[in-house]
Amino acid sequence: MEKLGKQTVKFNTPPTIFETASIVGPKEAEGPLADYFDKCLEDEFWGESTWEKAESKIIKETVNTAIAKSGIASDEIDYCFAGDLLNQCISSSFGLRELNIPFFGIFGACSTFVESLCLASVFLEAGAGKNILCAASSHFCSAEKQFRFPLELGNQRPPSSQWTVTGSGAAIVTKNGTGPFITHITPGKIVDMGIKDANNMGAAMAPAALDTLITHFKDTGRNPSYYDVIFTGDLGYVGKEILIEMSETKGYQIKNNYNDCGVLIFDKENQDTHSGGSGCACIGSVFSGYIFNQMKAKKYKKVLLIATGALTNSTTVQQGESIPGIAHAASIEL
Amino acid sequence: MEKLGKQTVKFNTPPTIFETASIVGPKEAEGPLADYFDKCLEDEFWGESTWEKAESKIIKETVNTAIAKSGIASDEIDYCFAGDLLNQCISSSFGLRELNIPFFGIFGACSTFVESLCLASVFLEAGAGKNILCAASSHFCSAEKQFRFPLELGNQRPPSSQWTVTGSGAAIVTKNGTGPFITHITPGKIVDMGIKDANNMGAAMAPAALDTLITHFKDTGRNPSYYDVIFTGDLGYVGKEILIEMSETKGYQIKNNYNDCGVLIFDKENQDTHSGGSGCACIGSVFSGYIFNQMKAKKYKKVLLIATGALTNSTTVQQGESIPGIAHAASIEL
Repeated sequence: MEKLGKQTVKFNTPPTIFETASIVGPKEAEGPLADYFDKCLEDEFWGESTWEKAESKIIKETVNTAIAKSGIASDEIDYCFAGDLLNQCISSSFGLRELNIPFFGIFGACSTFVESLCLASVFLEAGAGKNILCAASSHFCSAEKQFRFPLELGNQRPPSSQWTVTGSGAAIVTKNGTGPFITHITPGKIVDMGIKDANNMGAAMAPAALDTLITHFKDTGRNPSYYDVIFTGDLGYVGKEILIEMSETKGYQIKNNYNDCGVLIFDKENQDTHSGGSGCACIGSVFSGYIFNQMKAKKYKKVLLIATGALTNSTTVQQGESIPGIAHAASIEL
Repeated sequence: MEKLGKQTVKFNTPPTIFETASIVGPKEAEGPLADYFDKCLEDEFWGESTWEKAESKIIKETVNTAIAKSGIASDEIDYCFAGDLLNQCISSSFGLRELNIPFFGIFGACSTFVESLCLASVFLEAGAGKNILCAASSHFCSAEKQFRFPLELGNQRPPSSQWTVTGSGAAIVTKNGTGPFITHITPGKIVDMGIKDANNMGAAMAPAALDTLITHFKDTGRNPSYYDVIFTGDLGYVGKEILIEMSETKGYQIKNNYNDCGVLIFDKENQDTHSGGSGCACIGSVFSGYIFNQMKAKKYKKVLLIATGALTNSTTVQQGESIPGIAHAASIEL
């Protein structure tokens, strides 16, 4: 591999995203991308007694589906990189505790899925293994309860708030394969522009997305038109507009080929999700369901995936802290 | 690099642990290793208004100390791998938000420090960078409050309970250098033997330590006597005894050259810490302070570092779940 500029790694023998899987909840099943997911649940519990156990089951079954679809034996998978939004990443560790694969827990908030792709691709090109499992999950109910208010309160949500996606995305990345290839990664820095509104995560994360986006273009010498589509993770409607405007002031026009997974996953008119989707499962399930499908069908040949995360918790919000953001990018090409 | 057996990576040009730093709290300053730490705090707040902000300051200043001691300019550091015990790893993300270095958040509970060494060493031998910062922190007060009871309750602690270390350890790992070298890593699997007692983390984590220990010996063909010392992260007195016994039943005698960082950091007779220390900062500060110092002085030439983590939170304990453990190993040699 080769380091380009300050932050980007270019792979000489790029790893392949060999197979993906996605499972989502009932609200996502009513959204415009429902047909692309492997499974849509009928309720948020999926037969479990708590939302936390349901989320663990979702990531577990998503990972099992990815392994089954790939045809790769699970003892041929060298490592698992996984994480989620729950305190101490419990949906990953409980959901995947029977997996029997060396496990690296990661936390990048909603950027976790692309963080896992970044780590996996370096490990694979380095020769540390041949097949690596990447996974991330989130759950509306377990996240709302943990980060904001008890759901039973039924409190109002401001227009800038986003709706945590219930679901999981998983990918099996392999050293050898015929693509889609992870050709470059641009891991992001923590960026904190002082936003303190926990109901406006899009605004808090957009500056981190901008920093990674522009760094990626500078490091690679590429410009926005190189890509068929640029996808951010979960900036939502509010953050998407901010990113388009800020990019323009920096000399990069992205509005013609840019979209956000949080905008895509729900129907703004009919689903009452305000600024759109969020959560680790947002870019996780949209990539593993929709985007990967479009690439396999050769409708998209060059995609820049920028997952964004808000590195905050309910205590820091109560203590009056601002919300640091981060964004990790992976260039995925046929 | 080369894969040995199922789980171990051997480095052909092993990365060097170039410099370390450690800062600890007032209780650790009264322990037997006080002289080895870069700084010992006089109180748990360090001038901040909350324990969470104090922990962020501790990891920030530990990282700044490591960078200053190394003489490496911070813009020459390619990545930072860091994590901690607080919900959503906030001490790392808030403490390191001004660092301006590409950041990978990781979560391995108390195994986080060695997890960061594992990831950094693969990245360095792969050529993804030249210098990588690894860091982890924990804080007795912020952890007790979050995982167990309000400190104000002053509740009794059972004999098997451990005392979360207040502090942080940081290491700068470099592609080139004269050692100590990270020669092998054995990343661990999640192991859950059904222990449910949140006041007996040593018992919950010992089976994971055993799994990684034996896998390391089998993969490398080494046996316990190869190492000058084998250190586990924070099994404490209870977990240490379990590991010695279980290893013996598997045919490995470790009691002559094995110790635990949680046993070393406090004085059992005079400090009322029951089963010993725990937390990300336990192996983090004991390695960065004491063990690294002993290796630089050539008192230890071959060390196996096995960090152990309990992948649990207060919700899973309340929901009656057991406590999955994990252990990551790194072989560090001159």
